[in-house]
Amino acid sequence: MEAKLQEYARLLIEVGLNVQKGQDLVISSPVECASFARMCAKAAYAAGCREVVMRWRDDVLTRERYLHAADEVFDTVPQWQRMFFDECAQSGAASLHIAAADPENLLGVDQDRITRAQRAGGEALREYYRLQMANAFPWCVAAMPIPSWAEKVFPGLSGDQGVDKLWDAIFSAIRITGDGHAVDRWREHLDTLHRRCDILNSLDLESLHYTNSLGTDLSICLPEDHVWCGGSSRTTKGVPFIANIPTEEIFTAPLRDGIDGVVYASMPFVCGGTVVEDFHFVIRDGKIREVHAAKGEEALRAAVSVDEGACRFGEVALVPYDSPISSQKLLYYNTLFDENASCHLAFGEAYPECIKGGESMSKEELSEHGLNDSITHEDFMVGTADLQITGRTWGGAKVPIFVDGNFVI
Amino acid sequence: MEAKLQEYARLLIEVGLNVQKGQDLVISSPVECASFARMCAKAAYAAGCREVVMRWRDDVLTRERYLHAADEVFDTVPQWQRMFFDECAQSGAASLHIAAADPENLLGVDQDRITRAQRAGGEALREYYRLQMANAFPWCVAAMPIPSWAEKVFPGLSGDQGVDKLWDAIFSAIRITGDGHAVDRWREHLDTLHRRCDILNSLDLESLHYTNSLGTDLSICLPEDHVWCGGSSRTTKGVPFIANIPTEEIFTAPLRDGIDGVVYASMPFVCGGTVVEDFHFVIRDGKIREVHAAKGEEALRAAVSVDEGACRFGEVALVPYDSPISSQKLLYYNTLFDENASCHLAFGEAYPECIKGGESMSKEELSEHGLNDSITHEDFMVGTADLQITGRTWGGAKVPIFVDGNFVI
Repeated sequence: MEAKLQEYARLLIEVGLNVQKGQDLVISSPVECASFARMCAKAAYAAGCREVVMRWRDDVLTRERYLHAADEVFDTVPQWQRMFFDECAQSGAASLHIAAADPENLLGVDQDRITRAQRAGGEALREYYRLQMANAFPWCVAAMPIPSWAEKVFPGLSGDQGVDKLWDAIFSAIRITGDGHAVDRWREHLDTLHRRCDILNSLDLESLHYTNSLGTDLSICLPEDHVWCGGSSRTTKGVPFIANIPTEEIFTAPLRDGIDGVVYASMPFVCGGTVVEDFHFVIRDGKIREVHAAKGEEALRAAVSVDEGACRFGEVALVPYDSPISSQKLLYYNTLFDENASCHLAFGEAYPECIKGGESMSKEELSEHGLNDSITHEDFMVGTADLQITGRTWGGAKVPIFVDGNFVI
Repeated sequence: MEAKLQEYARLLIEVGLNVQKGQDLVISSPVECASFARMCAKAAYAAGCREVVMRWRDDVLTRERYLHAADEVFDTVPQWQRMFFDECAQSGAASLHIAAADPENLLGVDQDRITRAQRAGGEALREYYRLQMANAFPWCVAAMPIPSWAEKVFPGLSGDQGVDKLWDAIFSAIRITGDGHAVDRWREHLDTLHRRCDILNSLDLESLHYTNSLGTDLSICLPEDHVWCGGSSRTTKGVPFIANIPTEEIFTAPLRDGIDGVVYASMPFVCGGTVVEDFHFVIRDGKIREVHAAKGEEALRAAVSVDEGACRFGEVALVPYDSPISSQKLLYYNTLFDENASCHLAFGEAYPECIKGGESMSKEELSEHGLNDSITHEDFMVGTADLQITGRTWGGAKVPIFVDGNFVI
């Protein structure tokens, strides 16, 4: 176990974030993950990191705050917090986010407070998020188990047993065996994803058409100068990093106004501490017109109306149905894993790297190229075993991309 | 145990900090103390707290930073951190500090880094500390066990056993039994301390003379308008609070230039993560002229030279040798407890409340009244079973204050 944890910490610092000598690192971690956060910090200092700054989080206190704090605190973000994030972004500090949360932590919380807090945060940290989306600094989202999360994934098991089993699942998903060769396996895996991107990029696609037996029938137009990305990204200074570990997807941005049809989710979606299940959207001219959910509909409606851009789409991502994480047949209730088990879409902000030269464009220029702008970016899963995706090129040719849930290119 | 913890959390919030409806609370806590920090947060919300903000700390990461971060980070404090503290002080947020640390956490760390960090912090947060010392907001230092600390107090015991035993000692020291009457016991105890203050204040003392068999022979002049304080303090808005739980002391400020002689420490002193043992100071005209320590002398020399005022004294505190904590015959290696088991002195900053009207005086005015100014304030213990303290009044009369380690007034 110790060997696996060490290998994991090194993978995150040396490959995920690719921390450079003299660079700062900010680690955002639940207090329960202190021992692993310390390992990451040690690995960072070993890699020449200038300083590690911790941003500790705690689910319990987050919930207490939503339940009991004064109402006005959800409408503002303290000036010092904005300053912290701006200082980090401007200095190019690497950002490691250890994603581990009780998926239902905010069950029963006043949705209005959550939405207002999200709006206030999005507004206050707009510049930080813009720089993050534009890869101005390396960032990496990774995970480790905490009991409340493990209990949701393995409802039958007690705390420690669930945590152990979730560790096994995570290590398998991120190619960690403790043999010291995780970095080599990752390089090989990234090559596969980069090759897929090259093929997609060579197709010169105008649009994609999704259908499956859930009822999905969706057409998605792509910007003329769209780029398929995946595997590693590069910071604006040219340093490669991996924004998500695991990552199995290749992705691009849709044309903001160019999505029409119906799309059914294929997995539950954890939306700000609430689990949304059995949902679908009706979309016209790129905008979500109808929201239907068997469970968590209020949270979902709130999520797609947090600002003007939240009801439009920012990402189209392709993941084979027989990808390693999907083959685990495990519902993680954690977007980082679930999105890498399934084709997915995201409503909200698009990634600038998804159009040629996008990372150096202003918000206005990105908008002119058809990319969506929002303070949110939420992935939800649409892939199934019978998903068909057919591309249409600018030349008018039809190209099968996915047949029965998997790539055919 | 649960009942004791709940009683403790309520004592800190309702009596220690006396959190008012609509007031913010900042809790500074080691990550290991998360469960108790959460209890305190819940108690605060129950008392009408507007918002609880956490400042998590971690000994391990603090040590890693001192060992491995780039050298220049110890000379500055980020602007956002200064802004955070200033916002807290200006809004009158209550401050709870959960003191729990490995006493030797910084053993072997470059002392120069520690000193520079202390100077940079003291400089950046000067206004915050000034407002804290002047009771512009309620603050309370309390403690809970963590394994690294418990191991030092009970060297023979394993982690959990040591922690349990340290909990017992702490609960006893702070009058918590789990019977729900801790608040009543505290009110009674505060009355005792206040009565002692009244007596000392009525004596109109000009100076104190300390002697014991360790070799201490020290005379301490007091400002003409000095005030003996103890038990609860009051914020500048008039709200009572208790700055330390436990507290057994009554204290005042010495005249900055009016201390002469030799003083021997009666207990080890934990000085920024290093334990200093068997030490004494030679003092002339209020200034420490000689520093001698059998162990940790470098750390001690650094502590008394962090700035110009660090080599002069800021506090004179009286604690009976037969006080409850002293009777535990336990060395806590934690100033909060050890200082309340023994008469002590502090080098560094004086408390403005220790002279009449001091809380509304500027630094310059306090200095004109003979109070010491520094970015540091470090208590060290001088009480012994045979300590004699004789007062001399402005009228020239000699008044025995302590005989054989205990009050005789």
